[in-house]
Amino acid sequence: MSAFDPTEHTHRRWNPLTESWVLCSPHRTKRPWQGAQESAEVPQLPEYDLKCYLCPGNERATGGKTDKYESTYVFENDFAALKPEEAKAGEDVTNPHPLIKLQPARGKCFVICFNPAHNLTIAQLTTPPYSASSHIVPIIKVWQDVYGRIPRENPFVSYVQIFENKGASMGCSNPHPHGQVWSLDYVPEEPAKALRSQYRYSQEQTHVQAGEPKSKTGRPSLLLSYAHWEMQQPDSPRLVASNEDWIAVVPYWAVWPFEVLVLPRNTHLNHILDFSPAQVQSFAAIMGEVTLRYDNLFECSFPYSMGLHQRPIPPRASDLTAAQKQEESEWDEAQFHVHFYPPLLRSKTVRKFLVGFEMLGEPQRDLTPEQAAKRLRDVDASQHYTAQL
Amino acid sequence: MSAFDPTEHTHRRWNPLTESWVLCSPHRTKRPWQGAQESAEVPQLPEYDLKCYLCPGNERATGGKTDKYESTYVFENDFAALKPEEAKAGEDVTNPHPLIKLQPARGKCFVICFNPAHNLTIAQLTTPPYSASSHIVPIIKVWQDVYGRIPRENPFVSYVQIFENKGASMGCSNPHPHGQVWSLDYVPEEPAKALRSQYRYSQEQTHVQAGEPKSKTGRPSLLLSYAHWEMQQPDSPRLVASNEDWIAVVPYWAVWPFEVLVLPRNTHLNHILDFSPAQVQSFAAIMGEVTLRYDNLFECSFPYSMGLHQRPIPPRASDLTAAQKQEESEWDEAQFHVHFYPPLLRSKTVRKFLVGFEMLGEPQRDLTPEQAAKRLRDVDASQHYTAQL
Ligand SMILES: O=P(O)(O)O[C@H]1O[C@H](CO)[C@@H](O)[C@H](O)[C@H]1O
Ligand SMILES: O=P(O)(O)O[C@H]1O[C@H](CO)[C@@H](O)[C@H](O)[C@H]1O
Repeated sequence: MSAFDPTEHTHRRWNPLTESWVLCSPHRTKRPWQGAQESAEVPQLPEYDLKCYLCPGNERATGGKTDKYESTYVFENDFAALKPEEAKAGEDVTNPHPLIKLQPARGKCFVICFNPAHNLTIAQLTTPPYSASSHIVPIIKVWQDVYGRIPRENPFVSYVQIFENKGASMGCSNPHPHGQVWSLDYVPEEPAKALRSQYRYSQEQTHVQAGEPKSKTGRPSLLLSYAHWEMQQPDSPRLVASNEDWIAVVPYWAVWPFEVLVLPRNTHLNHILDFSPAQVQSFAAIMGEVTLRYDNLFECSFPYSMGLHQRPIPPRASDLTAAQKQEESEWDEAQFHVHFYPPLLRSKTVRKFLVGFEMLGEPQRDLTPEQAAKRLRDVDASQHYTAQL
Repeated sequence: MSAFDPTEHTHRRWNPLTESWVLCSPHRTKRPWQGAQESAEVPQLPEYDLKCYLCPGNERATGGKTDKYESTYVFENDFAALKPEEAKAGEDVTNPHPLIKLQPARGKCFVICFNPAHNLTIAQLTTPPYSASSHIVPIIKVWQDVYGRIPRENPFVSYVQIFENKGASMGCSNPHPHGQVWSLDYVPEEPAKALRSQYRYSQEQTHVQAGEPKSKTGRPSLLLSYAHWEMQQPDSPRLVASNEDWIAVVPYWAVWPFEVLVLPRNTHLNHILDFSPAQVQSFAAIMGEVTLRYDNLFECSFPYSMGLHQRPIPPRASDLTAAQKQEESEWDEAQFHVHFYPPLLRSKTVRKFLVGFEMLGEPQRDLTPEQAAKRLRDVDASQHYTAQL
């Protein structure tokens, strides 16, 4: 039995945000691929598509019309998964057996067009040096706007999930660059897990390591500690991009082959409205750099699901229960961060399937996070690959 | 605000096995579909394919040869995700920070060919009345064999995950009917969650409801209580199939559109070696009926990931630690069950994508489990749809 070597030998890594394990099989990319191929076409999209309901001035399926917008554009989803007028969460629903539990859920869903051009993704709105990612800034500003405005206009909202679903292989039904916002009257599972683990870390880690920044509450912060630890590692093996305010890493516990986590480098930011004007600019820059590196990796419009995790909306009632007060104070430890979950594994046509063992057993990955980060770092990022064509 | 109606209104349902919520938006199947289409071809496969490494007598990529088998056939995976000879789980690996945790993992992976014919899936090995599913019985028997033999021959193995990944859209790289077995020196996340929740239920539910069967230990059993509750419901709205020993339901908390859970009807069975000869027959029958109903629903070879959850392998050391003894006794509550996770939603070409909100927020489904079960029940199941062609 040879000495254990994580670059060669199978192992599990712990995800401290979701408190679960992922299996990592570094040798597994060597197997021949005989499975499904994604469509390899790189569609040449027009700048304006008469049949696209997200292009300025066009009609939507339900008869509504998309405004002749010039920058970003927000509208309520015509086929929303959540609706505001339905019964109230927490309203009495009698559950007939201890195993059978149901809760009404309310919310509002929106679509955000990132820009009027049908064919310009976030990756194409940037050019190195990324500091000048001025066309991405309006997207960040609209995210700030919806995070503030939706709960203000809909007092029942207690969580705002901002995300982008990109690429047909991710179930995205329209290539026009756009994201979504689902606002809800409860905190959904994934952010709830991350809030819980961040709070626990702040309570259980009685001291931080030398030099680690602390949260605004003066406590240890899971994601500040993690960002600090990553930047201390010789040659930063998981680093993909960084600037004065942000780092982008393939996290130590990544599940998807080229998963990326964007984190504040050393400031505690509860949510997107906490950003300084300079942080808005530097955030646009790192989002531009990550997505451009993605596209250039396999020379394709890289599919992914991407989303922001941030602080839930504090309850506005003046008569909070003790449990609500406790939960709200736990949210103070929330650190703003962005997850990118991209499916591609080997090329623009071969993806990783999280099926079989992954569904029944646990997530499994075929290359190490360090190998993935190196590939994203080594990519020629001097310009978007389509600019070279 | 109208009265809450779960057949129309958005709500969340609780999964007591994984202890997490799923969002259910019953109105959402009404939206038009403009997204990706799966390939609609129903390939006419030959009974024998010279280029298939799973067909009897053919060569495999690594130079090995598949025997000229006549029933089922088991061999070690040439590209295993886990290997037996690597460092031992629990072996000392120094973790450099409280957030950074790694564990070596060992295991052995096998492939099981279900039968020599390249073109006969489980669904095609059965005919109503399903009680005569004699061609499925050898598959059940080989599952029994591997569950017993792998840990006996590899004393480090503490969990055996048996599963089938079916269809190119599920990342399956070869259409020859086959499943896999990944054996490991630890219990992976998904079965670990189900074991924990079953144990907790046995401890926390101090009494069962009238008529509910109990586990072998005399305690309340999560999955026996659930099966009993389902069978008590007027018109059994989530029932897909049943026989004297088994029920197949779209569980109350299903995530995938046509997810199915196969459960013992009223007996506690820790694992597949607990089956009586009659239960082997009736289990083959219900597996045949579920897969035939799947195929007939959209008249295609229905893709899915399917797997068995059962008791882990008790540690064989005579000097168990107190923690190991406790864990082992918790496993006594394990109830054998089978999960089917199929991706199709609307037709043989339109699947559900669990992306975007589902990855960043929580799983979301577009039709109720009751609607899905009704469709599977209403399917013409008098014969496999290909037999009618
Ligand atoms: O082993 P296969 O069929 O080549 O591969 C498939 O199943 C495996 C086990 O679930 C997954 O890890 C792979 O991502 C998937 O493509
Ligand atoms: O809203 P879209 O892009 O039509 O749909 C896509 O994103 C949604 C939100 O993540 C998912 O629920 C759908 O399954 C997916 O196809």
